[in-house]
Amino acid sequence: MTYKNFPMVPKVLFGRGGFNQLNDILAPKRLGIHAPFIFLIDDVFKSNPWITSRISLSYDDRIIFVSAKEEPKTSQVDELVEDIILQSKQRPSGIIGIGGGTLLDLAKAVSIMITNDGGAADYQGWDLVKNPAIYHVGVPTISGTGAEVSRTTVLTGPDKKLGINSDYTPFDQVILDSELTKDVPKDQWFYTGMDCYVHCIESLTGTYLNTFSETYGQMALELCNEIFLSDNLSETESQEKLMMASWHGGMSIAYSQVGVAHAMSYGLAYLLGTKHGIGNCIVFDHLEEFYPEGVKVFKQMKAKHNITLPTGICADLSDSEFDIMIDVALGLVPLWENALGKHWKKTITKQKLKALYQKM
Amino acid sequence: MTYKNFPMVPKVLFGRGGFNQLNDILAPKRLGIHAPFIFLIDDVFKSNPWITSRISLSYDDRIIFVSAKEEPKTSQVDELVEDIILQSKQRPSGIIGIGGGTLLDLAKAVSIMITNDGGAADYQGWDLVKNPAIYHVGVPTISGTGAEVSRTTVLTGPDKKLGINSDYTPFDQVILDSELTKDVPKDQWFYTGMDCYVHCIESLTGTYLNTFSETYGQMALELCNEIFLSDNLSETESQEKLMMASWHGGMSIAYSQVGVAHAMSYGLAYLLGTKHGIGNCIVFDHLEEFYPEGVKVFKQMKAKHNITLPTGICADLSDSEFDIMIDVALGLVPLWENALGKHWKKTITKQKLKALYQKM
Repeated sequence: MTYKNFPMVPKVLFGRGGFNQLNDILAPKRLGIHAPFIFLIDDVFKSNPWITSRISLSYDDRIIFVSAKEEPKTSQVDELVEDIILQSKQRPSGIIGIGGGTLLDLAKAVSIMITNDGGAADYQGWDLVKNPAIYHVGVPTISGTGAEVSRTTVLTGPDKKLGINSDYTPFDQVILDSELTKDVPKDQWFYTGMDCYVHCIESLTGTYLNTFSETYGQMALELCNEIFLSDNLSETESQEKLMMASWHGGMSIAYSQVGVAHAMSYGLAYLLGTKHGIGNCIVFDHLEEFYPEGVKVFKQMKAKHNITLPTGICADLSDSEFDIMIDVALGLVPLWENALGKHWKKTITKQKLKALYQKM
Repeated sequence: MTYKNFPMVPKVLFGRGGFNQLNDILAPKRLGIHAPFIFLIDDVFKSNPWITSRISLSYDDRIIFVSAKEEPKTSQVDELVEDIILQSKQRPSGIIGIGGGTLLDLAKAVSIMITNDGGAADYQGWDLVKNPAIYHVGVPTISGTGAEVSRTTVLTGPDKKLGINSDYTPFDQVILDSELTKDVPKDQWFYTGMDCYVHCIESLTGTYLNTFSETYGQMALELCNEIFLSDNLSETESQEKLMMASWHGGMSIAYSQVGVAHAMSYGLAYLLGTKHGIGNCIVFDHLEEFYPEGVKVFKQMKAKHNITLPTGICADLSDSEFDIMIDVALGLVPLWENALGKHWKKTITKQKLKALYQKM
């Protein structure tokens, strides 16, 4: 029997206000005056000196603001890499991603593609990356996706939505400063937090589960229940706990796998561009059959926070559009196998998925 | 405010039987035919082909069996390093520690001292190590100490018992194979498991606690309660869960600190050579004043498993011996500060510690 030899983020700084130490952390990693640090930052922070004034740019360092309105794409990675290579005199000293899952995944993918030939789409899959990435740092500003800790960077490519899963993908350094999440709008807070909750349910009920994943998943699930169902936490506590829930939830799926909600949500994202957090919520809301207890509690959380999910997003789709979405979802074999076991095809048919999508 | 930038083990393999992959993991790390792998193995496995037959020795690779009957010493590290350097044609490719906390701490310390001048005692403290250690791998065969994940290697030196705490201390690779713990004698299982339990109590009640540590400590504590108080686990489940409890407990103290039990137990170890696990139990049993709830549950666990702790171990000590023990304990300032806050000296006096030791 073979086991995964799992890579972990080798260095993590945790603490409210810890973002102030970014410059000190980067300084010894500078390779030379012509080897810049490239900061990829969510463009919601563009006019936000509270964030940007704390980044000290030296020599050829650059900030590139990136919109996270859409899910990250392989073509977007390729364009960023080309731009960075063209404008840098030497290979950069490092890539720093500051934002949510989209920015963190872009930072991971760019750091890989700077040292690997071809386009990002060539590496969507498991263990296709040949050369180590350049130094890369993740600074989450919203909690839930687990992108700060995961071994993948999920990208929408020309023919699929799939991660670049590799030992070189994880960040070399993560800064967990919950203060950076203080201005997240409530609906996004909920959707992204639910990404973590769904990770836990998919991991803990999956056939790939082992004791390693179980302990992380259990911890993250308890934190989610506390954050989204209790009234006992201060805002700061709630932000810190959600940051840790995201971390542990990411660790849990790293050693197991996600499941039905993620597979179907990837289909929505590929066809309709539905963002990952809200996509997971829209799908998960209809998955009682697969996750009865998890969906029941999800509905309680949704009610407690007065969240109304979009409906009818698949109402006007043509048959061929349904087919595209279903094919993307069905292509994610490990997710189905984790959720339903080796014989998942007995339960999951194209008709079944279509009927589910039609409810959404 | 400054936060710790905490190093984590960058690669971990988890799974029953995972030890079989050790050779595959090491192969790509070999630096040359004259750069051996050195396996430091607990000598209880000396005539145990179930372990040793699975280690393939090539070129100048060597197994060194080491007794774990005594706590690891700085002089022992220096002797091992001298022996390894003298007998190796080139700097070794790596050090692999296979055993409990003693062997793991020796492996960490040896890997550091191969690249750093002087003796191990020169580096007892915080962040005194100058050069990166050579590649080192930890394979725990008993669970609880957290040595597999921690940033320290605790050694008894000429004038103190204190760890080499540094960013270079953590293992580069850990293999968590709970099957290796199947033959641990019951009393050792209990004492070492309680080391983890005590870590959780000391971390969770400490003044250094932050949300990062709290989530790990909570997870480990819940696992300990399940393992040592419930009757619902199979042997395999119990072994796997204790391995994960040790891991998470180690993570919890890594970002906070231990407390009164560890400080006083270090005193016992320094003077009497009391092994760490049993020493913690002997001390913790008398710490109701500091950890009322934790000690109550500890006594339940002790009763459930019919553990009888030694008594009267300090009965025949002279005043000067008490003083030695008390000075070692009081020297561990961060532990007292974590347990009782900045003004700990108001609560803790030499007389008070003497009275506590006299009960043991």
